[in-house]
Amino acid sequence: MINRLAIIGAGLIGGSLALALKQAKKVKEVVAYDHNELARQQALQLGIADHVSDSIADAVAGADIVVLAVPMGAMCQTLKTLAPYITENMVISDVGSAKAQVVDAAKTALGNKFSYFVPGHPIAGTEKNGPAAAFAELYQQHRVVLTPVAETAPYALNKVREMWQTVGADVFEMTVEHHDEVLAATSHLPHLLAFNLVALLAQGEDVDEVLRYAAGGFRDFSRIASSNPVMWRDICLGNRDAILTLLQQFQRDLTMVERAIEQGDGDYLMTVFQRAKLARDSRFAEPGLIDNSEV
Amino acid sequence: MINRLAIIGAGLIGGSLALALKQAKKVKEVVAYDHNELARQQALQLGIADHVSDSIADAVAGADIVVLAVPMGAMCQTLKTLAPYITENMVISDVGSAKAQVVDAAKTALGNKFSYFVPGHPIAGTEKNGPAAAFAELYQQHRVVLTPVAETAPYALNKVREMWQTVGADVFEMTVEHHDEVLAATSHLPHLLAFNLVALLAQGEDVDEVLRYAAGGFRDFSRIASSNPVMWRDICLGNRDAILTLLQQFQRDLTMVERAIEQGDGDYLMTVFQRAKLARDSRFAEPGLIDNSEV
Repeated sequence: MINRLAIIGAGLIGGSLALALKQAKKVKEVVAYDHNELARQQALQLGIADHVSDSIADAVAGADIVVLAVPMGAMCQTLKTLAPYITENMVISDVGSAKAQVVDAAKTALGNKFSYFVPGHPIAGTEKNGPAAAFAELYQQHRVVLTPVAETAPYALNKVREMWQTVGADVFEMTVEHHDEVLAATSHLPHLLAFNLVALLAQGEDVDEVLRYAAGGFRDFSRIASSNPVMWRDICLGNRDAILTLLQQFQRDLTMVERAIEQGDGDYLMTVFQRAKLARDSRFAEPGLIDNSEV
Repeated sequence: MINRLAIIGAGLIGGSLALALKQAKKVKEVVAYDHNELARQQALQLGIADHVSDSIADAVAGADIVVLAVPMGAMCQTLKTLAPYITENMVISDVGSAKAQVVDAAKTALGNKFSYFVPGHPIAGTEKNGPAAAFAELYQQHRVVLTPVAETAPYALNKVREMWQTVGADVFEMTVEHHDEVLAATSHLPHLLAFNLVALLAQGEDVDEVLRYAAGGFRDFSRIASSNPVMWRDICLGNRDAILTLLQQFQRDLTMVERAIEQGDGDYLMTVFQRAKLARDSRFAEPGLIDNSEV
C-alpha cells in the first residue's frame, strides 16, 4: 500500500498510473504537480489526484513514492528542483524513454539520496497527451522496464516493482545500457527512419501526388512519423549514444544494399530480405496483417 | 466486352482480374497459362479460367487481351516467349511494379508490335499468393496506374483502361519515369528500410530479447519486412535507377540527422520531425491510429 503518491507531471503516463492505483485501492492519497494550471485543474476534476500543487516542494512533502512523469526534455531540471525535498525512506522513480541520461542526471542531482531512485520506463502510451487522455487500464499487460544500478536500494526497487505490478504491468529488469540499446533498436531508430523518409518526400514538389499512391504498407510504415516532434527530439538527444551506434550500423548495411542494387547482386538482396522475413515472421504472428504484396 | 482474355500467370493478381471480369460478365472466355501445373488445375477448379494451357502460344491464340501477371523477375523472359504469337489487334498489358524495365523489355521483345502494349500496375494485393488467393473484389476502389508511351496505340490504352474500370479500379495515367519515382518513394524504399532494419536486428545475439520489447510502432513499421523476398529482390533490381536516386537522398538526409544528434542540435531535429508530421497528418487522417507515444 502506498500512503501518499506524488505524481510530478499529470499527463497520460502519470495520470494513468494514479488512476490505476486508485482503482486498485493501493494508494491512500495522490498529490499531483504539473507546471500547467489547466492540467492541474483537470487532474483534480478527473479524480487523478486528491490534491494538486503548483510547487514541487509541496507536492512531494510527505510522499512515500514520487513518480517523475514529465517529458524527457524536462527530466534533468525536474530532478534538480526536486532534490532538496527528498527525505529519508522516500522512493523516487521516473518514466523516461532513455535511461542513461536520466540516471546520470539523478546521480548528480540527488547526491547521497541517489539510492532512493529507481529508473523506470513503462512501454505504453497512446496517441493522446494530457490528463484527459489518462485511463486506469493503460498499463495492463504492458511491459515496464526497471533499470536499477549498483547504488539502488533494494527496498526502493521492490516498492516500485510492486507499484507497477499492482496496475497490471509485466515488470522486467535490465541494465541501463541494455535498455537504451533495445529501445534504440525497436523504437528510436524506427521513428528516425520514418520521420526522415516522410520529411524527404514532403520536400518534393509533387508530395500530394506521390502520397496519393501510397498503399497500406506505407501507411503502416510511416504511422510513427505522426508522433510528437518535441517528445522525439528529446528522446533522440536523450539516447544519443545508443542511437548513434545503431544508426551507423544501419547506414553501413544500407550502403551494402545500395551497392547490391547498383551491381545487380540479387543474391545479396535475397540474403538480407530472407533474414528479415524469418526474424519477423517467427516473432510476430499476424497472418491476417502481413503484407506480402508490393503495395 | 472482351471476347477472349489470356491470363499469363494465374496467381492472385491475374486470377482476381479474371474472376472480377467474369463476375461483371464482361469477358466471354478466359484462358490461363501458368508454368506451375498445380496453379493451372486450381485456376480451372476455382473458375478463374475456362481453359488452361501449359503453352503460352496456345494460351494467347485468338485472345483479344493478353495480361502478363507474372512476377517482375519473369517479365522479360515471358515477353520474349510471347512475342511471336502476338497478332494484329491483340492488346497486351502487364501488372509489373516497376515500369521502365518492363517497357524496355517489351520494346525489345515486341518490335513493331510494341504499340499493342499498355504498361500497367494495379496497386493492390494481399499477403497471399497463388490462384487460391484470388478474389473478384481485389481491385474495387484500388488504384491502377497505366503508363502509356508515345508508341502506345490509343485503342489499346482505351481497352485496358476500360478493363480495369470494369473491375472497380480507379485508373490513373502517368509517365513511366514518374510512376517509378512515386513507387520508389511510397513502396520500394520503405520496404528496403524495413528489411534492412529487421535484418540488422536479427544479426544481434539478443534478437529475441530485443524484439520482446517491441511495441505497436515497431510492429507497424516492420510489417512490410515480412514481404516475399523473391518478389522484392526482383522489384529492387527492376526499379534500380529510381530506387538508387531516392536512396542516395535518403542517406544524405539521414546523415544530417545523425550529425544533429551528435552535436545536440535539437532545432534541426525539430525541423525534420515537424515537416514529417505535418505532411503525414494532413494526408492520412487516422486519429485513432496515430501513435504519438514513444513505443
